[in-house]
Formats: sequence, structure tokens, C-alpha cells
Amino acid sequence: MKEDTKTKLNQNQHQQESQQQMCRTIQVVSTVDHVDMSPPVASPVVVVPSPSDDLNLIPPLNFAMVDNGIFRSGFPDSANFSFIQTLNLRSIIYLCPEPYPDANNGFLKSNGIKLFQFGIESYKEPFVNIPEDTIREALKVVLDVRNHPVLIHCKRGKHRTGCLVGCLRKLQRWCLSSVFDEYQRFAAAKARVSDQRGECCPASE
Amino acid sequence: MKEDTKTKLNQNQHQQESQQQMCRTIQVVSTVDHVDMSPPVASPVVVVPSPSDDLNLIPPLNFAMVDNGIFRSGFPDSANFSFIQTLNLRSIIYLCPEPYPDANNGFLKSNGIKLFQFGIESYKEPFVNIPEDTIREALKVVLDVRNHPVLIHCKRGKHRTGCLVGCLRKLQRWCLSSVFDEYQRFAAAKARVSDQRGECCPASE
Repeated sequence: MKEDTKTKLNQNQHQQESQQQMCRTIQVVSTVDHVDMSPPVASPVVVVPSPSDDLNLIPPLNFAMVDNGIFRSGFPDSANFSFIQTLNLRSIIYLCPEPYPDANNGFLKSNGIKLFQFGIESYKEPFVNIPEDTIREALKVVLDVRNHPVLIHCKRGKHRTGCLVGCLRKLQRWCLSSVFDEYQRFAAAKARVSDQRGECCPASE
Repeated sequence: MKEDTKTKLNQNQHQQESQQQMCRTIQVVSTVDHVDMSPPVASPVVVVPSPSDDLNLIPPLNFAMVDNGIFRSGFPDSANFSFIQTLNLRSIIYLCPEPYPDANNGFLKSNGIKLFQFGIESYKEPFVNIPEDTIREALKVVLDVRNHPVLIHCKRGKHRTGCLVGCLRKLQRWCLSSVFDEYQRFAAAKARVSDQRGECCPASE
């Protein structure tokens, strides 16, 4: 227990130090003129200095960009909607069999985002039981640029999403060891810092 | 020792299973017509079925896409050059003080890639000692779309690269806990699978 407390204290202290470091750095950098730097579609590197934390955007758990127009994450909740709006998604690929929550369906409807659901039961590694035909159909949706920008997500953005992304990497001729490195980076991810979200990141709504 | 051996065997077995799973899946999916799916610039989701492993591309250690036109990785070596060529880079941001190797300089020259070097000594967390003015200058280069596509790299793609990407995320108004989650995903990455690269991924040159 003592060690846990100590660890958490150190972690918080480190967060504070890093936060101060980042904020000091950002404060100066944000004076750079970004007018010609971020056209909405061509480059979504939108840089908007935030006056306070309560304006921060909260990406879904395990969020990452996979390739141009392709994103991955864990299950998005209402706290992530403001962030997801910045992606200008055309579609979402949802890899769980459970029905999509009303709140998420409402968000998709109001933002004109198409939902592709491929119900894959929850498996951990080895994922030899993931149905090939389902992954195949999901890959067709991922590869069709008419669906881009697209967000691929399951529950935690680890195994089902990682399997689909891994198949995409193989199509992109990625070396298998690199495919597994990327898979492991997300599958092994601990959400330790996110557990403390309430301390530094109130939802924007 | 016995346990290590057993673990490695299981890992290899899992790799084999996963490899078979992926290859079976890919074999069918790669019959989809991709002609209109991958214009070289707008969407680099280049899908080229690979007849054999020796045509595989090898991304640098810890490679990932940060945002449109922005990539991150560990130090690229000659085995990664074929992959890096697919990114059509305009520039590279190199965050170590050590001089860039001749082989890498030659690759940059022959591919018209501009090198921005910001010599930051190797630090682990907490990275309070990373010089603010250097990070500030590096961020200006990252944010200037005239340098895109750009690859940010240090030695292992963990701490120095992670600090610069973390500052970018703060400018993008990412919630701090998500910034730290992303930082940790790379800082904590073990290259276990890559250690076995020789077994499944010969360099393409």
C-alpha cells in the first residue's frame, strides 16, 4: 500500500513537472503564426492555444492515427465526442456484437457519420478464433477511401481493432515483426494515466 | 532459463498462428480492386500484395503516424530506407546531438529530404532537463506544413521524440492524461518481437 501511494505521488509529481514544462514551452510556441499551417482537410494539425484545461479535448482510450484517413481507438463515450468532431469522420467501424449505445448513435446521426458494425466476440491473444470473413469484410470498408476519414474501434482498442489494423499492415507489406510490435504497443497499454483523468481533464461538455 | 525458453517458444508459436491467420485473411482480401483506393499523395494506404517475405517493408523501431504529414520513429537504418521512401518525406527532424551517419545522409541526399537536427542529450523521465528553446524551435519545424511529410526521430523514438510529440498534442488541446498515455505507449515499448526480426523479416535490400 505504502509503495502504491508513493508511486502514485511520484507519478502525480512527474505529471505536474511535465505539465509545467509543456505549458511553458507551448506558451511561447503558440505565438507562431499558424494561419497557413492548418487547412482543415489537407492538414488537421489544428493548433488552438487553450486558455484553460476545461477546454481540453479528450481522445478515446488508445486513440491513434493508423494512416491517412484511418484512425483507431477504444470505445468512445460522450466525453470524447468533442475530440471526435475534430476528425471530420465519414464513418466508424465498430467491431463488437453489442448494440451501439443511443448516445453514440445520436452523435453519429447529428454528425452524418455512417456506422459499419462487425460483431466479433471478445478474444485475447492468440486471436485465431476471429472470423476471417468478418475481418475480410471490415478490411474492404477500411480500404474504401469513400469511407474516409474512418475510425476503427472495439471496446478497448486492443485485440479486435489490433487484428484488423494488423491485417491492413500486412496488405501494406509491413514486416511481420513490425506488425506485431504495433499490435503489442496497444494490446499491452495500461490506462494508468487515464485513470487520473478527473484530476486534470474535465470533459469539455 | 526453462521458463524463458518456454515463453519464447509460446511467443514464436503465437507468431506462427497469427502469421497464418493474417496471411489466410490477406490472401482473400487482396483480390479486392484497389485501383481507385490509393492515390499516392491523398491516401498513402498503398496495398501491394507481397509474394514473399523478402519483399516486405521494415518500418523503423517505434514507427507511427502522429498526424497528417507527421511521423515518429526510432533511429532509421538502411534496412528501413525502402519503407521510408513510401512516406515521400520532405524533411526529417533528428533530435540527437550525434552527427548523422553517412549512410543516412546519403539516403536523404538521394531522396531530396531536408534534415533538421536539434541536439538534445539523452534523458529519461522526468524530462525536465530537455531545453525549452530547442523543443520550441523543433516545434516550429513540425508545425510548418512546408516541411511535411516530416519524420521526427531520436535514437529509440521514446523520450526525446515523445516529448516533442507531447508538446504538439498540447497545442492540439489534447487532454494531458491522453498526452501521457500516448507518451507511455512508446516509452514503455519493448522491442521483443523486433528482436526476432531476422526470423521473419529479411531486409529488402
